[in-house]
Amino acid sequence: MTTLKKSPAAVLLPSAARIAADIAHFASLSEPGSGVTRLAYSTLERQAHAYFRAAMEELGLSVRTDAAGNTIAEAAGTDPGARALGTGSHLDSVPSGGRFDGIAGVAAAMEVARLLSTTGLRTCHPVRIVVFASEEGARFGQACNGSRIVAGLTDTADLERLTDADGITMAAAMRSVGLHPHDIGDARWHHDDWAAFIELHIEQGSVLESLGVPVGVVDVISGSTRLAIDLHGRASHSGGTPMHQRADALAAASELVLLAERLARRTRHHGTRATVGRLEVSPGSLTTIPGKVRFTLDVRDVDADRQHQTVSEFLSRATELCQRRTIRLTSQLLADTPPVVLPERVKHHLVRASEARGVAYRVMPSGASHDAQMVNRVVPTGMVFVPSRDGISHAPEEWTNAEDIATGAGVLLEALLALDAEPDRRTA
Amino acid sequence: MTTLKKSPAAVLLPSAARIAADIAHFASLSEPGSGVTRLAYSTLERQAHAYFRAAMEELGLSVRTDAAGNTIAEAAGTDPGARALGTGSHLDSVPSGGRFDGIAGVAAAMEVARLLSTTGLRTCHPVRIVVFASEEGARFGQACNGSRIVAGLTDTADLERLTDADGITMAAAMRSVGLHPHDIGDARWHHDDWAAFIELHIEQGSVLESLGVPVGVVDVISGSTRLAIDLHGRASHSGGTPMHQRADALAAASELVLLAERLARRTRHHGTRATVGRLEVSPGSLTTIPGKVRFTLDVRDVDADRQHQTVSEFLSRATELCQRRTIRLTSQLLADTPPVVLPERVKHHLVRASEARGVAYRVMPSGASHDAQMVNRVVPTGMVFVPSRDGISHAPEEWTNAEDIATGAGVLLEALLALDAEPDRRTA
Repeated sequence: MTTLKKSPAAVLLPSAARIAADIAHFASLSEPGSGVTRLAYSTLERQAHAYFRAAMEELGLSVRTDAAGNTIAEAAGTDPGARALGTGSHLDSVPSGGRFDGIAGVAAAMEVARLLSTTGLRTCHPVRIVVFASEEGARFGQACNGSRIVAGLTDTADLERLTDADGITMAAAMRSVGLHPHDIGDARWHHDDWAAFIELHIEQGSVLESLGVPVGVVDVISGSTRLAIDLHGRASHSGGTPMHQRADALAAASELVLLAERLARRTRHHGTRATVGRLEVSPGSLTTIPGKVRFTLDVRDVDADRQHQTVSEFLSRATELCQRRTIRLTSQLLADTPPVVLPERVKHHLVRASEARGVAYRVMPSGASHDAQMVNRVVPTGMVFVPSRDGISHAPEEWTNAEDIATGAGVLLEALLALDAEPDRRTA
Repeated sequence: MTTLKKSPAAVLLPSAARIAADIAHFASLSEPGSGVTRLAYSTLERQAHAYFRAAMEELGLSVRTDAAGNTIAEAAGTDPGARALGTGSHLDSVPSGGRFDGIAGVAAAMEVARLLSTTGLRTCHPVRIVVFASEEGARFGQACNGSRIVAGLTDTADLERLTDADGITMAAAMRSVGLHPHDIGDARWHHDDWAAFIELHIEQGSVLESLGVPVGVVDVISGSTRLAIDLHGRASHSGGTPMHQRADALAAASELVLLAERLARRTRHHGTRATVGRLEVSPGSLTTIPGKVRFTLDVRDVDADRQHQTVSEFLSRATELCQRRTIRLTSQLLADTPPVVLPERVKHHLVRASEARGVAYRVMPSGASHDAQMVNRVVPTGMVFVPSRDGISHAPEEWTNAEDIATGAGVLLEALLALDAEPDRRTA
């Protein structure tokens, strides 16, 4: 076994060019239109997983895809009793999203696998490179589906209940791409099989860019409460109906969009983020007063109490506003994830790894939710952020330099090797 | 020639049952889903015209369809020099619309033709029963297309320019159902060929119902200014982007929806009606701050000055509001129709006809635009309203009793016969 204690940084330098090549290939797997559209449980997502699988098999790793569609490549370790170290992210996107959200973390993990393999380096622990399925909640309303499944945080009943805009259940979508929603119990991860996990991800905000710092070490991940709100007014003719006789569902919805914004902007909600990302008007005719509106609300916070206070204040004030307009409001809870504090030990290794590589870093919260927060339920997990240009994400303009991903991958690898050097604490 | 001066009312009583049967047949020609969807220049609209044609041919009328898709059935008059009297309306609908908007006027006109035909009554003037094509602006943004064409108020260039939500031009839609957008000049009506026209229509408001009056005689038809507004913000991640760094196109649009409502509700805009009926959000993902919003604004007024003041005040204040949010606003004028005062002579005959039949009536403005206001440019035109239950229109709940339509049809027929008895004033 090669010993690495001296200076792994000197021998294991991630290549920005190889990372950029992988990212360009993944970006080519997209529906037509602006940006990247590679939705959860679509054929395109599976094609991206297949590319990942082929690249890992070429390096000699053993690869399997679980019932939930997560693809896991493993390089064996030298110690047969050691639990696994893991890294990875996801390959699905929102509609008209970017090339880096999720993909950066997969490309960094692939580069880690390449460096370990091509240098002939053998770790004590097995190292697993993981691509989670269906991370984006854009299609079915529930985010981090693949990682929820491995952490036991969702079940087959959820998969049969959640639908996309066309009414297709998540379970049906999974079956249509050859997966097995009724066998997801087999995909569960167990604490006695995993030592630690690290996800690299783009920041999706502009803190690192504005500070000129290339790496973020995440300490807390925001929670997210997601609602679907339906407003029922009265559709009628735009010319024939006087203003005072209207029950205009879109005018009511407009008040609620601004209410959500106002609540999140108030001082005592500092750090709260509230977004109406989808809004559909029926019947959607130029000359008809909207009779129905359906929209989604996403409330994020690093403080669990404030997260739920914001949601309940929104719902009670929204109901009042709608009553004044004789609009009926109904709401449905799509998902409710609490904020997660990541474990000190993995964070500590990421901080030390940044220092060892001479990379400036910032310890910071994550506004977005990530697979990391799900798997942290069963594996001690850390997160590395790399900068997002202009803080833009979930949009075609999303951009992160390959050099920055390579720098982050170096920190990730350094931390994995430090974790590998620790005595393992397998309990089973 | 049978003389009718004495008591036409006694012999010519419209049948509510026959009218109801026609309306039920037309309602069956619809796309699936709630209410009636029979869009302008669709195959379903042509099927409705074909049913009308067959019914008129069975009565012995000669029927033709012009290049614009208007279908015109004619019963010859006894005086070869007399110009035509006409009545009719349209058979297309908005998406998820009702069974009566337009259809009531066609069914009433068909019943007039049946009564004239089955009683063997011959008028001096030819009587034309007209079904205008493509009255609803819902699909292409321009309302009253068939009647605009006969009045020379739109041209082939407009038809090639206006598109539906799928990017199909009106001209292409016309060609796809066998019509001839480049020959619409042949469809023009001429003053020396027409003596008068009357359209029966549902009120699409609740004035008649609230007064308990079965018939309205329209004096003024509202103008309508229609805009498409595009807002360009910045799409970004709902978790990663702090509230103060957002350029949320939907939050801006919400302010503009409420601005339009506020302007129309102000005292000095009394009688103005402003509606945002369509609004589309891009990219439309739960976890993405909306980067773009497109919506329509429909401003109606019986006062032309106030109509344009409202639009220009809206645009200047909307631009200001958007600037504060670093949102770019662009707007496109889809249509701009001034209010129309209908001629005294036809209105007078409708009032006298109501009195002759012992039917209570109300002289009133129309908030909605109608084919009547277009053809009034070439033919002196009147309008009869019948009540709309709860004032609801452009919605599946739209309802008018067949008995009310029959009462209106009786007034319509009485007025046509009175016009027939007047010496004609052909000038050519």
